[in-house]
Amino acid sequence: MDRKAAQLQTIETLTKAGLVLTEDEMQRVEIADFGLDRLEQEGLQLITYENNSHYCAKELVLFPNQTCPEHKHPPIGKTEGKQETFRCRAGKVYLYVEGEPTESIQATIPRESEAYYTVFHEVELNPGQQYTIPPNTLHWFQATEQGAIVSEFSTTSRDEYDIFTNPDIKRTP
Amino acid sequence: MDRKAAQLQTIETLTKAGLVLTEDEMQRVEIADFGLDRLEQEGLQLITYENNSHYCAKELVLFPNQTCPEHKHPPIGKTEGKQETFRCRAGKVYLYVEGEPTESIQATIPRESEAYYTVFHEVELNPGQQYTIPPNTLHWFQATEQGAIVSEFSTTSRDEYDIFTNPDIKRTP
Repeated sequence: MDRKAAQLQTIETLTKAGLVLTEDEMQRVEIADFGLDRLEQEGLQLITYENNSHYCAKELVLFPNQTCPEHKHPPIGKTEGKQETFRCRAGKVYLYVEGEPTESIQATIPRESEAYYTVFHEVELNPGQQYTIPPNTLHWFQATEQGAIVSEFSTTSRDEYDIFTNPDIKRTP
Repeated sequence: MDRKAAQLQTIETLTKAGLVLTEDEMQRVEIADFGLDRLEQEGLQLITYENNSHYCAKELVLFPNQTCPEHKHPPIGKTEGKQETFRCRAGKVYLYVEGEPTESIQATIPRESEAYYTVFHEVELNPGQQYTIPPNTLHWFQATEQGAIVSEFSTTSRDEYDIFTNPDIKRTP
């Protein structure tokens, strides 16, 4: 799937859920394939509504069975790492964070990068459910076959500082 | 309209727009009549998803033609006042902030409290449109006859410190 097709599918997913974007926002829907070139397996689509020196709000779209690879938001200088609240709006998401590993997880770890998924404490998010990920905490997440929309509320977003477990990943689009 | 009826109407409005609340959230939908006892004219319904020491996310529901009275979020000690981004999700909202008064405003000022509406710089928000209100800035807003849903992304919310232009208003529910 090329970037344009991914943008269109993102807009369609949001529209079907009743979430409206402006024309300008449609143009800047971000397609993150993390430099892995297998977007449908490991990738994320997002639109940033607001990102200022205090808070940030985004809508994240996951295509069916798509995984956002494991990463964390480290401190930057004297500033704590990004803290983020994920609120599931549509579909279903399996979120994994540091902590007691869940015995039998429901997600399927992407085969090509199996070694780079290392935290397995499972949080299942259905529409209306949310979870807050503390700063500097490893996490990854995957949609089920329905795909998913997740509202993200957080402190300031500086994606270029994210640390991914997979050393092949480049976050800059 | 009593509190229970207002809660039910709020939940119905959100549900129709595809926004899902958990059972617990439905119980704690906040009905703010500002102590004026004319909710349908001057009032606001809201659900707080997250409010921590860094950021806050809420959904605001305005019934048809309902007005949220003029107020501002002052600094508290050494902390700046609340900064908030309003994103219209459904319906239409007329937002008024400090600045050059708009010649012929589209909202109808509530008759009983006309003297307590003093800023008239109009911002019209349709679905997908948003506006960020700086700290310590007077603002008020009104839905059209369709009602409205507004997502609010902000710094920490401490409603009890809000300063209303109308001295009769008590913010605590």
